[in-house]
Amino acid sequence: MLKVCIIGSSGHYGYVMERASEKSDDFYIAATADGPEKSETDYINMLEKEKPDIAVVNPYLCYNAKVSLDCLRHGINVFSEKPAATTLNDLTELKKAYTKSGKIYSSMMALRFAPGFIAAKEFADAGRIGEIRLVHAQKSYKLGFRGDMYRDNKLYGGTIPWVGSHAVDWIYYFTAKRFLNVLAAQSSIANRGHGGLEMTAACSFVMEDEIIATASIDYLRPSEAKTHGDDRIRIAGTSGIVEVRSGEAFAVDGAGERKLPNTKEMHIFDEFIKAVKGEKNELPKAEDAFYVTEICLKARLSAETGEMIKI
Amino acid sequence: MLKVCIIGSSGHYGYVMERASEKSDDFYIAATADGPEKSETDYINMLEKEKPDIAVVNPYLCYNAKVSLDCLRHGINVFSEKPAATTLNDLTELKKAYTKSGKIYSSMMALRFAPGFIAAKEFADAGRIGEIRLVHAQKSYKLGFRGDMYRDNKLYGGTIPWVGSHAVDWIYYFTAKRFLNVLAAQSSIANRGHGGLEMTAACSFVMEDEIIATASIDYLRPSEAKTHGDDRIRIAGTSGIVEVRSGEAFAVDGAGERKLPNTKEMHIFDEFIKAVKGEKNELPKAEDAFYVTEICLKARLSAETGEMIKI
Repeated sequence: MLKVCIIGSSGHYGYVMERASEKSDDFYIAATADGPEKSETDYINMLEKEKPDIAVVNPYLCYNAKVSLDCLRHGINVFSEKPAATTLNDLTELKKAYTKSGKIYSSMMALRFAPGFIAAKEFADAGRIGEIRLVHAQKSYKLGFRGDMYRDNKLYGGTIPWVGSHAVDWIYYFTAKRFLNVLAAQSSIANRGHGGLEMTAACSFVMEDEIIATASIDYLRPSEAKTHGDDRIRIAGTSGIVEVRSGEAFAVDGAGERKLPNTKEMHIFDEFIKAVKGEKNELPKAEDAFYVTEICLKARLSAETGEMIKI
Repeated sequence: MLKVCIIGSSGHYGYVMERASEKSDDFYIAATADGPEKSETDYINMLEKEKPDIAVVNPYLCYNAKVSLDCLRHGINVFSEKPAATTLNDLTELKKAYTKSGKIYSSMMALRFAPGFIAAKEFADAGRIGEIRLVHAQKSYKLGFRGDMYRDNKLYGGTIPWVGSHAVDWIYYFTAKRFLNVLAAQSSIANRGHGGLEMTAACSFVMEDEIIATASIDYLRPSEAKTHGDDRIRIAGTSGIVEVRSGEAFAVDGAGERKLPNTKEMHIFDEFIKAVKGEKNELPKAEDAFYVTEICLKARLSAETGEMIKI
């Protein structure tokens, strides 16, 4: 039985909780601790006392990197909220600690496995759309009422890294190509009193092989909408197009237009457990988490400066 | 009866032909002439002989501006293929000739009136989505087999002005805001032997009031798809979101999610005729055509140089 500790409660530790009940033969939650935003020693004490196999890291986002680094230095596998870091300096330090540690690290890029995305990925990987040439991803969330962390960009890190990182992760996951440059824009207008929170953003990327990708990011989804998020991606290739919307995958290729069946279910924490146990797994790689974070932080810098950034 | 002459046959003169049969009490087609790509004098001779009320201008795209200018100087109302011009110099000359002429000029921005777009525009104009904050437009066409004009960018003018101008026109039409800067990217890779034809492009705009807009443009739609084009727009505002896809408008606001009925049909050439007759009309304005063309040509320049362009 793997021993799990949870640090902070500002992110998706629910991914772990929802598996704890079903998969209790693989792991158990031994203890929880506050993140550094509440106590700088609480989680360290817990790590030293409990010596867990896995730390679930989801403090205020600005502490993701510091807490993950502390865990890795204690020889503990890390399942961290994304983004991996909210500054490029923190990211550099985290990468060093990860490399030294020899431990498993992954960020909570669970939306790779959201309904429709698995089917779309399998379709693209099977060569059914040919070479990918153009991608557009959409992240749209309800704003609701959000607490202190979201109202201070130093704590929050910004909407592009927090919400947009899923879009960037999808783009990287589907294309498996490097990003060459980014221009981004963002705006805090109409954020209903949420401090500096950016309500809207867009990123435009040029990637290897002249692949072009855009991402549209917003908190404008009305509270009356059926789901919290309206996640989409459209991937156009040389011989077909596949897209995901409303949790379903749609394709058009030489066989015409159709909906693709959702053939497989996957859960990110199941993949994490497999990775820790040394089993074959599809856990998003640490390197992917770090790279996607780097791209998001450079996109944020572009939005802040109004300048295109070479990557 | 208004007398119409048609110059060239490289664009959408079909918009006029399809109304000629139904609306023959308003206008008739008196003559047609080749564009300058075939004869530099043919259309001038026709204009001087026929003295039409209206010239339908659709030669090779690079000649749209020159032929329109000649028509305006002959005191003839112009219904021109878009883009209005394929160079900024031509655009400047055309604008001068238009201002001097006192005639009606409009470009073939018929897709403002495509199914779904009228309903979406009425919904947005009624204030149902609040203030517009974020827009994404999509143009996706089948490539098929395209002739000489498309294979030489000097004649064609590029995919951003030709295909993308609809996306830019929608963005401008819905927001009624000015564009402040643009970054664009484009690629000719995988164009199946079509010379320099750009197969993919994306534009990212910052507009007045920090409105952010993106456009995704491609010729990757498989020939097996049901329709030639896959035109979409998504407009997110402070109190709702409206979008068009598959020829239908969808909204989500305080009343939940729903499809909007297509309430009204409009045809761009009917509006043109009304404008020439001095009747109330919703013809896209000459100023809009010129402005959208300017934005597209600056987007193309951005894509060519890899630099963001201030507008």
